Amino acid sequence: MTRFAFELHATDGRARTGKITMQRGEIRTPAFMPVGTAATVKAMKPESVREIGADIILGNTYHLMLRPGAERMARLGGLHNFMKWDRPVLTDSGGYQVMSLSELRKLTEKGVEFRSHIDGSKHMLTPERSMEIQRLLGSDIVMCFDECPRADRPRDEIAASMELSMRWAKRSRDGFDSGEEHAARSALFGIQQGALDEGLRRVSAQKLVDIGFDGYAVGGLAVGEGQEAMFGVLDYAPEMLPKDHPRYLMGVGKPDDLVGAVERGIDMFDCVLPTRSGRNGQAFTWNGPINLRNARFAEDQEPLDPTSNCSASRDYSKAYLHHLHKSHEILGAMLLTEHNLAFYQALMQRMRDAIAQGSFTAFAGEFRSSYFGK
Amino acid sequence: MTRFAFELHATDGRARTGKITMQRGEIRTPAFMPVGTAATVKAMKPESVREIGADIILGNTYHLMLRPGAERMARLGGLHNFMKWDRPVLTDSGGYQVMSLSELRKLTEKGVEFRSHIDGSKHMLTPERSMEIQRLLGSDIVMCFDECPRADRPRDEIAASMELSMRWAKRSRDGFDSGEEHAARSALFGIQQGALDEGLRRVSAQKLVDIGFDGYAVGGLAVGEGQEAMFGVLDYAPEMLPKDHPRYLMGVGKPDDLVGAVERGIDMFDCVLPTRSGRNGQAFTWNGPINLRNARFAEDQEPLDPTSNCSASRDYSKAYLHHLHKSHEILGAMLLTEHNLAFYQALMQRMRDAIAQGSFTAFAGEFRSSYFGK
Repeated sequence: MTRFAFELHATDGRARTGKITMQRGEIRTPAFMPVGTAATVKAMKPESVREIGADIILGNTYHLMLRPGAERMARLGGLHNFMKWDRPVLTDSGGYQVMSLSELRKLTEKGVEFRSHIDGSKHMLTPERSMEIQRLLGSDIVMCFDECPRADRPRDEIAASMELSMRWAKRSRDGFDSGEEHAARSALFGIQQGALDEGLRRVSAQKLVDIGFDGYAVGGLAVGEGQEAMFGVLDYAPEMLPKDHPRYLMGVGKPDDLVGAVERGIDMFDCVLPTRSGRNGQAFTWNGPINLRNARFAEDQEPLDPTSNCSASRDYSKAYLHHLHKSHEILGAMLLTEHNLAFYQALMQRMRDAIAQGSFTAFAGEFRSSYFGK
Repeated sequence: MTRFAFELHATDGRARTGKITMQRGEIRTPAFMPVGTAATVKAMKPESVREIGADIILGNTYHLMLRPGAERMARLGGLHNFMKWDRPVLTDSGGYQVMSLSELRKLTEKGVEFRSHIDGSKHMLTPERSMEIQRLLGSDIVMCFDECPRADRPRDEIAASMELSMRWAKRSRDGFDSGEEHAARSALFGIQQGALDEGLRRVSAQKLVDIGFDGYAVGGLAVGEGQEAMFGVLDYAPEMLPKDHPRYLMGVGKPDDLVGAVERGIDMFDCVLPTRSGRNGQAFTWNGPINLRNARFAEDQEPLDPTSNCSASRDYSKAYLHHLHKSHEILGAMLLTEHNLAFYQALMQRMRDAIAQGSFTAFAGEFRSSYFGK
């Protein structure tokens, strides 16, 4: 059985479409991965996540190692069995959330020591432990343990951090490879760092390629640098990574971010935006985002998208969604999460189709014109 | 088309099984009605409410008149269209929640003046206005506007309150009958009052029968009097109401309350317990209630009910439900609400089957022995 294969079906400019084949299923690219932080895509049943078109979801190592715990998850048969999702799961390494969520961090060559944001308990994450945790979870696509500094730090800090991440990438590779059964059926992705510096990005890419990975992520973006700066990096960074492996832009993004990144050669994305926004009353539509809490929707009998295959988008009026969100009803979060994820999956499908037909530039133009109302 | 018909298929002791036929569908009795307070059965999609076996749901006049508002709901095509539930809906009159939730109440012969618990706005509910609101909502089974005093008030207060409710029942009847189109396709239920006093219950029943209703509710119970006192009233109160009309015990109850009330001749129930408990981590099972937040479930790989038709009951481990509830995940509320409502519907189905087979006494004994672990 194929462990990991990436096939390109068509390219259009720098945009690519294809598929990844793994033991738990195929992943059509460009792919958007809904985020299932704590072993659940928030407010969605797993069968609904599949129904709206997701081929793969993301799980967070940091959250899962703290609750329910990696060893406990292994005793319970792994993440897939726990949450009843039998298709591929990509897990992050925990590095990013240690830096953004935990307390009392201490960063050394060995790894990061920190205290849990839940109960203050002390933990240590190293490349080796991150690989072990992702193995205990039963992850299909494992991410290297890295450090992600703020993009506005001085160049020498960015460079030192990137060099550390590259040493950790090698240790991640070795740690992953030591997990025999798991390594034989799952994949490991490296993560390019270097912030907004083209030279550092090139060094990082070369070091990763020298180690060798199944896929390559562009890390260190979507950390507050803005879309223009991000697109600036994406004008060169994906091209530094091997063409015959998937390229994953971590933590991105808004619908227009996805279109611009696919245009620049990215194949995979994850982001909490559609799920988090859905809980906050924001809906993504082909005519731009709207907030259902706004009083102008109180008697709006139209659904969010009458042409959608998703019942949350098609069957309920904006007036009803407005009422549910004003009333803080759980069903409001459920329906808008489902709508937003269905919208994201529909956007990915339209991009895949446009690339296959060689009409991606026209699609992107039409999308922007409709989305930004120009 | 039949406006309202009640057919008894079998009786077993005082327990009865049959069905109500209305324009929007049939209601198998004994029936449990999930509560959809604010135009949503909390944490459930309407199609899931139907899938787990509910024939009818309950809507709350008090909540809906305040938000989104009765006239607005009418402009939006009524409650059924608003929330995408096309089967029967029973609406309460608003009287009970005015007394329990609102501020600055002023009770007169005319009705009740109060301030909204949401925004402090001033409102008046009278029998006539309650009938008008339930008509604007498009209710299938309309409840009379009544007053429900605490069962521990002095007898003269209980008597005066019951007499007021009976005068309001006549005004409700007249108000309902004046709604031509709506009255031609919906039903009106009277509500017996009299707290724990058999004499007052008899007077109340006679006054209601003199007015004439499609169904009769036993009101004024489940307000803190305890199961023994409630069963004491149910030993005589249902028999005072016409045999050929459904009898509805409002706001009840725990699974063992339902069994004991069916045993005493009740046909319909509503209660927030299965939905509210589900959000709080409590699951009902044939072996009694359990709380999934308890640490003993952290590694329990068994589902709540491996034999259930409901995937929430059958497909997820208690360990996963424990994790979701400890993590305050919306999916935890979703799955446990669905499980609990499925359990309640399964209990009603087992009771209907047992009555049809003439084995209700045996069923009730086995249920209690299993539920209370005796």
